[in-house]
Amino acid sequence: MSEVRKPGPKAKPGVKSRLIDAGLKVIGAGGYAATGISDISDSASVAKGSFYHYFESKEAFGAAAVDSYFEKHRPYLLSILTDERHEPVERLRRYFQARIEHFREIGFVGGCMLGNLGVEVSDHSDVIRSRLDVQFQQWSDLFTSCIEEGQRRGSISDSLSAISLGRYLVSSWEGAILRTRVEKTDRAFHEFLEFTFGRVLK
Amino acid sequence: MSEVRKPGPKAKPGVKSRLIDAGLKVIGAGGYAATGISDISDSASVAKGSFYHYFESKEAFGAAAVDSYFEKHRPYLLSILTDERHEPVERLRRYFQARIEHFREIGFVGGCMLGNLGVEVSDHSDVIRSRLDVQFQQWSDLFTSCIEEGQRRGSISDSLSAISLGRYLVSSWEGAILRTRVEKTDRAFHEFLEFTFGRVLK
Repeated sequence: MSEVRKPGPKAKPGVKSRLIDAGLKVIGAGGYAATGISDISDSASVAKGSFYHYFESKEAFGAAAVDSYFEKHRPYLLSILTDERHEPVERLRRYFQARIEHFREIGFVGGCMLGNLGVEVSDHSDVIRSRLDVQFQQWSDLFTSCIEEGQRRGSISDSLSAISLGRYLVSSWEGAILRTRVEKTDRAFHEFLEFTFGRVLK
Repeated sequence: MSEVRKPGPKAKPGVKSRLIDAGLKVIGAGGYAATGISDISDSASVAKGSFYHYFESKEAFGAAAVDSYFEKHRPYLLSILTDERHEPVERLRRYFQARIEHFREIGFVGGCMLGNLGVEVSDHSDVIRSRLDVQFQQWSDLFTSCIEEGQRRGSISDSLSAISLGRYLVSSWEGAILRTRVEKTDRAFHEFLEFTFGRVLK
């Protein structure tokens, strides 16, 4: 529906991604509902009117921000999950351990943008909810591919569905992130590692 | 710090719990940040000034609401988890199945107040965060007691810590609730049941 966009200057390369990067930070700090379009444009040093040149609404922005958030994380995730120097199950463990180290360094704050928006927006915006759904599934699929490789090599039991396992890792990891945010300790992360690698993937 | 409370009518029995019940609904629908004290008092049909007779701040209200939320759920949870007609592991399964049925009936909306506030408030209010921490642990402890009983009876492996298991059930369940809210289907709940009862507690 580009016809609803207000007239504005010609789209400049980089401005759209600047808005998204700034918006991810502002939403990450204060939540989606509390973030206004002017908070995003101010933070990106972009005129508020220009925002509508790139996004027809805050909701459209939110949907694009969800996609961007996971797309930015994806190369890092993929580099660990396809690292042939390690067995697939070890790659999964290394990914989670690196994320735990990250959360420990920042004091268990901020959580995961997909989880945060899932809680805040899922019941209110079908547009954003459907992008969260897609990106959670993309994430799950990367785990599934790694699990399938482990199953082919015999290091992960093939009695379980790799698709369900990949999805379960994402969901239970999100639960662990939540608990560590509440506790401000890494205890729930260690429990996640213990049961994921000691029981579920065994 | 009762000295900061504004003068008001003598506390009436029932008003405090009316405020909490109304507040839980309003916060449940729109989130904590978006809820003002007047939203809570209006919804409870209580004069706004009276609010401060019972709570010194919105934050104090939030902390009391967290305690109340879990205390209201506790008898129901306990009745299932101590039902001697069933083996402990079956009681756990019955509890989750009943909750899944509940979420299915309401269309996978609303989530869990502890999880929602955990995401929204944990980084911003230590007062509320610490009550979430306590109530998540209370909840975990009820699972732990049931798991310990199962371990004594030999129906749950005693090679694992019942304390860690109880905590993991809460965390991974919260992750499943989040995923079902995003997907608006019960798929993640079934995966939770499959891996919890097929692998973790086996």
